[in-house]
Amino acid sequence: MSSTRKEHDFLGEKEIPNDCYYGVQTLRAKENFDITGIPISKEPLFIKAFGYVKKAAAMANKECGVLDAKVTEAIVYASDKLIDGEYTDQFVSDLIQGGAGTSCNMNANEVIANIGLEHMGYKKGDYNHLHPNNHVNCSQSTNDAYPTAFRLAIYLKIDEFTDALEKLQKAFFDKGQEFKDVLKMGRTQLQDAVPMTLGQEFNAFATTIGEDVLRMREVQQLITEINMGATAIGTGVNAPKGYAEICTKHLAEISGIPVKLSPDLIEATYDTGAYVQLSGTLKRCAVKLSKICNDLRLLSSGPRCGLNEINLPPMQPGSSIMPGKVNPVIPEAVNQTCFYVIGADLTVTLAAEAGQLQLNVMEPVIGFALFTSLEYITRASHMLREKCVTGITANPEHTKEMVMHSIGIVTQLNPILGYEESASIAKEALKSGKSVHQIAVEERKLITQAKWDEIYSVDNLIHPKFINQ
Amino acid sequence: MSSTRKEHDFLGEKEIPNDCYYGVQTLRAKENFDITGIPISKEPLFIKAFGYVKKAAAMANKECGVLDAKVTEAIVYASDKLIDGEYTDQFVSDLIQGGAGTSCNMNANEVIANIGLEHMGYKKGDYNHLHPNNHVNCSQSTNDAYPTAFRLAIYLKIDEFTDALEKLQKAFFDKGQEFKDVLKMGRTQLQDAVPMTLGQEFNAFATTIGEDVLRMREVQQLITEINMGATAIGTGVNAPKGYAEICTKHLAEISGIPVKLSPDLIEATYDTGAYVQLSGTLKRCAVKLSKICNDLRLLSSGPRCGLNEINLPPMQPGSSIMPGKVNPVIPEAVNQTCFYVIGADLTVTLAAEAGQLQLNVMEPVIGFALFTSLEYITRASHMLREKCVTGITANPEHTKEMVMHSIGIVTQLNPILGYEESASIAKEALKSGKSVHQIAVEERKLITQAKWDEIYSVDNLIHPKFINQ
Amino acid sequence: MSSTRKEHDFLGEKEIPNDCYYGVQTLRAKENFDITGIPISKEPLFIKAFGYVKKAAAMANKECGVLDAKVTEAIVYASDKLIDGEYTDQFVSDLIQGGAGTSCNMNANEVIANIGLEHMGYKKGDYNHLHPNNHVNCSQSTNDAYPTAFRLAIYLKIDEFTDALEKLQKAFFDKGQEFKDVLKMGRTQLQDAVPMTLGQEFNAFATTIGEDVLRMREVQQLITEINMGATAIGTGVNAPKGYAEICTKHLAEISGIPVKLSPDLIEATYDTGAYVQLSGTLKRCAVKLSKICNDLRLLSSGPRCGLNEINLPPMQPGSSIMPGKVNPVIPEAVNQTCFYVIGADLTVTLAAEAGQLQLNVMEPVIGFALFTSLEYITRASHMLREKCVTGITANPEHTKEMVMHSIGIVTQLNPILGYEESASIAKEALKSGKSVHQIAVEERKLITQAKWDEIYSVDNLIHPKFINQ
Amino acid sequence: MSSTRKEHDFLGEKEIPNDCYYGVQTLRAKENFDITGIPISKEPLFIKAFGYVKKAAAMANKECGVLDAKVTEAIVYASDKLIDGEYTDQFVSDLIQGGAGTSCNMNANEVIANIGLEHMGYKKGDYNHLHPNNHVNCSQSTNDAYPTAFRLAIYLKIDEFTDALEKLQKAFFDKGQEFKDVLKMGRTQLQDAVPMTLGQEFNAFATTIGEDVLRMREVQQLITEINMGATAIGTGVNAPKGYAEICTKHLAEISGIPVKLSPDLIEATYDTGAYVQLSGTLKRCAVKLSKICNDLRLLSSGPRCGLNEINLPPMQPGSSIMPGKVNPVIPEAVNQTCFYVIGADLTVTLAAEAGQLQLNVMEPVIGFALFTSLEYITRASHMLREKCVTGITANPEHTKEMVMHSIGIVTQLNPILGYEESASIAKEALKSGKSVHQIAVEERKLITQAKWDEIYSVDNLIHPKFINQ
Repeated sequence: MSSTRKEHDFLGEKEIPNDCYYGVQTLRAKENFDITGIPISKEPLFIKAFGYVKKAAAMANKECGVLDAKVTEAIVYASDKLIDGEYTDQFVSDLIQGGAGTSCNMNANEVIANIGLEHMGYKKGDYNHLHPNNHVNCSQSTNDAYPTAFRLAIYLKIDEFTDALEKLQKAFFDKGQEFKDVLKMGRTQLQDAVPMTLGQEFNAFATTIGEDVLRMREVQQLITEINMGATAIGTGVNAPKGYAEICTKHLAEISGIPVKLSPDLIEATYDTGAYVQLSGTLKRCAVKLSKICNDLRLLSSGPRCGLNEINLPPMQPGSSIMPGKVNPVIPEAVNQTCFYVIGADLTVTLAAEAGQLQLNVMEPVIGFALFTSLEYITRASHMLREKCVTGITANPEHTKEMVMHSIGIVTQLNPILGYEESASIAKEALKSGKSVHQIAVEERKLITQAKWDEIYSVDNLIHPKFINQ
Repeated sequence: MSSTRKEHDFLGEKEIPNDCYYGVQTLRAKENFDITGIPISKEPLFIKAFGYVKKAAAMANKECGVLDAKVTEAIVYASDKLIDGEYTDQFVSDLIQGGAGTSCNMNANEVIANIGLEHMGYKKGDYNHLHPNNHVNCSQSTNDAYPTAFRLAIYLKIDEFTDALEKLQKAFFDKGQEFKDVLKMGRTQLQDAVPMTLGQEFNAFATTIGEDVLRMREVQQLITEINMGATAIGTGVNAPKGYAEICTKHLAEISGIPVKLSPDLIEATYDTGAYVQLSGTLKRCAVKLSKICNDLRLLSSGPRCGLNEINLPPMQPGSSIMPGKVNPVIPEAVNQTCFYVIGADLTVTLAAEAGQLQLNVMEPVIGFALFTSLEYITRASHMLREKCVTGITANPEHTKEMVMHSIGIVTQLNPILGYEESASIAKEALKSGKSVHQIAVEERKLITQAKWDEIYSVDNLIHPKFINQ
Repeated sequence: MSSTRKEHDFLGEKEIPNDCYYGVQTLRAKENFDITGIPISKEPLFIKAFGYVKKAAAMANKECGVLDAKVTEAIVYASDKLIDGEYTDQFVSDLIQGGAGTSCNMNANEVIANIGLEHMGYKKGDYNHLHPNNHVNCSQSTNDAYPTAFRLAIYLKIDEFTDALEKLQKAFFDKGQEFKDVLKMGRTQLQDAVPMTLGQEFNAFATTIGEDVLRMREVQQLITEINMGATAIGTGVNAPKGYAEICTKHLAEISGIPVKLSPDLIEATYDTGAYVQLSGTLKRCAVKLSKICNDLRLLSSGPRCGLNEINLPPMQPGSSIMPGKVNPVIPEAVNQTCFYVIGADLTVTLAAEAGQLQLNVMEPVIGFALFTSLEYITRASHMLREKCVTGITANPEHTKEMVMHSIGIVTQLNPILGYEESASIAKEALKSGKSVHQIAVEERKLITQAKWDEIYSVDNLIHPKFINQ
Repeated sequence: MSSTRKEHDFLGEKEIPNDCYYGVQTLRAKENFDITGIPISKEPLFIKAFGYVKKAAAMANKECGVLDAKVTEAIVYASDKLIDGEYTDQFVSDLIQGGAGTSCNMNANEVIANIGLEHMGYKKGDYNHLHPNNHVNCSQSTNDAYPTAFRLAIYLKIDEFTDALEKLQKAFFDKGQEFKDVLKMGRTQLQDAVPMTLGQEFNAFATTIGEDVLRMREVQQLITEINMGATAIGTGVNAPKGYAEICTKHLAEISGIPVKLSPDLIEATYDTGAYVQLSGTLKRCAVKLSKICNDLRLLSSGPRCGLNEINLPPMQPGSSIMPGKVNPVIPEAVNQTCFYVIGADLTVTLAAEAGQLQLNVMEPVIGFALFTSLEYITRASHMLREKCVTGITANPEHTKEMVMHSIGIVTQLNPILGYEESASIAKEALKSGKSVHQIAVEERKLITQAKWDEIYSVDNLIHPKFINQ
């Protein structure tokens, strides 16, 4: 028995290794594109999503009378294999590819056809009985099947990311609770401002991440609009009447994802607005995670020549030359991941802008950028929580001491003494090195010690009451 | 009478021209910052918004018992002047400035104080009676007043942009209706695909812009969350009890904008997430407008060596050397505006990421970027509609002729002949220069002339029925 | 006498105010484009550069025998007026415009024609005697005249920026010298590392800016390659033999800028590589200036709850609510300017990528981005030097004290004790709060006091000798 | 015999599989960072470069008297193994990592130590005889060894990319020669302009790529500046006198790369300017490659409803639904690669700007971005040449016919008839559908048939002589 089989398309004939479930078009794609070295198989959710799409299409085709029961059953059988995560290694084309995803869609068509053929008792490549284009791709085009599968995969990956964000949010809330009595100096523009608690600071991290969860949920809804039945350009050429609606209904049921049919299939077939919106929202998450990590690194700077307000859990020796040095390596890795995501957003932007006429041919690189961004930032969010946030401790004596020696607390005297007198105290304190107390109470006798104690009790510093006389 | 007056702050004394309503701190800012040469006065909505903010704050302060009736009345009077668009020329600090907007807020405080002083019968600069910090800025900080005013101004500018988008959407819909019977070739990857109508193409432009309108409305809601009462860092130090809520209520009433108080003032005081989201959504609009303009330029390419499907209204001679040349200058200008907006989104991204601890000090450049982006893209949207879209005409004979001579129409034979036979016809047509009709009907006799006529009637090409035998 | 004159082009006739030196095509452009509201007149060097170009072209045309002496003299006269900075207000078209600069080039052609006509004793608009296209634009196209003028203007603006950078470099070197004996802690990853001097830190700022000066000079050379004589697309259609070379020679002489003719005029006419390179180099400068300003803000953080190593000169009160607060407003404004420049680089990138076939039609927005970036960053560089760097002072006692109490100085014991023993000392110091001296000398007696004194003399800390036993 | 060994660092002890050459710090890094899933082993040139660095350092240390002959020999032996490409699989830490590359440097230190130990006859982990920090990393820090190895690797990858560009340039020149007599219409702003040859168009592609080769060579020089001997922050603490220079000399000899020592080691240790410059230059290459691919796709649009000037070699069936459709898949894949590179440049920019004080901790993501960008764009350049450019054919009859029927050729009449008369001919031609010849020669009799034949000979259209009467 020969170890290869012959397959042909309209460009000619090629030898396919007999154990391969993919066929001639996939082989051409594999030979044509070698950019990233990262094959589709690295995105198993994408392959699962193709399983959903091809199964729903086959069922709809049968209902519309254009596929018979036997062929339909074979396609459904094979699609279920993809949904179950089998045959993943048969998806070999590079994630960055020309052809607007045709190679990827044909890879799915060919693998499903050959799984189905074997299931029907035929040999691989015996496409008369089950044809990649005529049957598996029936009533479809790459231009509807590919973006639909892509959207399903992205939907699932957004779930994973949002879950990671929610866990991170919870971790910050817990720390906010833990640190609720830790008095510290608030800073604006890196200059000492007015007192607050470390708990408020960590709570705010939780709040800000919570808002990102909401934004991700909103954009996830945009992703559910699909264009099955559009075929080549949205006119629905070669798709039977009613197919689009039936296919969409099946797809929602099979996948459990609330997909809905776009009301304008021409627009939906070329539009990448939802990807741009998703990418922009990911960028937003990255910007905010990066800001949080910048703060964590700043607050833990030191140990002796920095702010030293908090301690991050030590994860590894920090230097090959400086003994005992420990670095904030986890936030640093998160920062870098965020920079990747922001860069990837630009890739998406460029690719979206390059769409022409009835199709955006740059969708594969949009897929590459969004898949990697979602993957990396999800992992980074888990890493930040597990290996950093949950282990953070505070240095409450040090932070309280800084507050009490600060000039910034003069602000509390403002409602009593007015802005200009208070500024004069601040100026003298800065120049002389004296404390605000020394100047205001002892020297200038502007307020009594009793009033001072009322204003500068820890309780009032943490929960300021308005005291203006 | 002297032509200057003396004012001082804690850095010293300066001479202010007597006719100036701004004071010493504004003067310092004017001298300190000379980057763009574009003063705040170029954003009249921002000044109006400061009027709203300062008026609402004064009214709330009075209700909370920290400002008396007389002072309040003077602040309200002066704020109303700003709301009415007066004294705009007194806002002289550069839009890009250090200090997180302190100069801008103090500019408003000083101008309002001096208008109020004259209204009360005092001289400008006689701040004992009405003080920029102690009274006009009472219970406020730059860190709540500035971003709140900024958000109000942005809200109003989003209204203007959305209005321009809706008008543009309507113009495309109208053209979609006008061109509903113009048969033309659809193209994917710049290669001939299958037929469609020019009406469908223009309809899709309208659809895609309609989606942007929805996205802008969503992000506009995010912008309404404000932090009045946060004062310096969100702890509300120096603001009386209840002030935040009362001030927010007044502000909503005065401005007519549905502002609401943030539930976490610490986070709200430093977070720039809403700006990043807005900027990302503007970027999305820019990407899509740019794609539309790319298409308009491509479809109107020629007149004799291009696609020549549509004609844009000629707006000006197109060349200093090539007589009679007319260029698609309006879409070109829109493309360029979109590139500006996408660049400005990066500026916003960088500025947002640079926020540290309790404040994002880079808000002024975020303001600069968003103000200019919104302004330019609003103007570009109006320009595109008025000077291009409404005057577009079609070349229906030419587009129909292209369809009928294309090879792409072989796709319609797919359900009858199968993908491989159809591909063989296509291949021969391409090689020989023959038409699909010639090969399929006359030579290979694969379908009858009657069937051909059914499939390739203009009506069926425009509204394809599924014909598979 | 009528207050308007009639002019026509092939789109029809328009009334021009009689005092305007521009003509019908400029008027159309003014009406067509209203995006930024920033007219060409805001870039006087660009207008001066058009003077150079048109003068050189006229002289070359005369030498080639295609313009007579009288017409040439009039063009030269009028061009000299532009070179001298007159008639700037006649350049009214928006910097962002469609038509690849045709409006801008025609604006120059029309203004020169009308100045020349009056000089010849004719009325404005009497183009039979001196025609904007046939004479002023003779042997030219927008596609060579516009980019050439643009490059000349950019060349001059690079000179201004480089001058500002060199002055800033000098200011940092001066501070480096002033601070050469100020011992301080070096930090990596915001964690205490090993000692250095503040002088070294400021010297490094100077070094890094010096490298940018070199990069700017390199890219300035790329900008000198021009394409006069290319006419419409680089084939030189309608330009007489020898014209390109003669024109280039004259242009170099007249402008004093070492322009040279591109060896491939087809490529030169559409290529925007030099702009992308320039923009990328400006981005580099922005990245580095921003890093420096981040450091200045960090080093001056405090005054009591931050690093407090240096003091920036106070430029303005820092808060509307916090008395006495002074902020690093100058570096903050520079940071923001840098974010603008980085955003503008993206605009340039997008515009460059959008070029098609024989011309890049997006050059005007490239011009807008580069003009504003160069202008803003030049001003920011001067501002940083004048209002910040030259006034910086150090806190040498505080910085020395931090070094001596640090754990980081344990690194110096590495060559003697080995990495692991040193790490153990560091770990104990961190845990116990003890000093390195206490553990290494007093408790563990690993080195003698004499050796300690040798290693930890200020001199050895500043200029470390290798001591390994 | 146990299958694991115990290793410890100052954070504690861990079990290492006995067959692993890496040690405890590498293991920690592997556990800490799981972002991209792409380990350092995917960049074999980076590992080779570490071999160069560690070998040169050992030799210099020996010369300076701080390492003995036996230890030196073992390090040299092990480093040579890395240089030869062995033990690559031992480099397991994620390319995106915190710690500024410490994990990566320690990975190299540990692997070299263990190879060396076995070579010396000891067991892995028996670090008393050969220690990762005390010996392999002697006189080094991550902060000099890591960036130096990175620069060497990048240097080698630039060689590979430049080689690919030069081959691509040659392929375009060859096509330029092949197509030198193919007359075609030049287009500006997508509108018909004036004639040119397809050869000129392809030559210009070669020219523009040639310029990129020069830019890459320039930036490659910047990359050769290294900071060996800087140790932790550039002060050279713990490095013996003379070491920096000796090490650099050895490194240049061993690697064959002309590295040179930075004159300011403080600056060199944190500065990322050369990476930003390299990334900006790569972005430039991407912009230009993308423009070329856009043009190739546009010129090959059709086959019947597009420009159809050239034919790209068919690489794979272009559609799962449209039979016979062939798409420009190779240029499309290149475009997408370019968008990746441009996005990666933003990542580099963000990471560079985030550097603080004496070190840029974000270097790993800069490495990730530059490594992948260089890899992908190199492969894309080869792919474009091999699978597209060399197989391009022209459609000379079609392109000539378009020229002769165009209106654009009226430009050639400009010097004879003047701009306004020529414009009038063009206008009538456009309106009436007549040819320029018909109007100018037959109807208006403005020039003779003989003159027409002179002007519009193919030779004169290709190499225009100046004819003005």
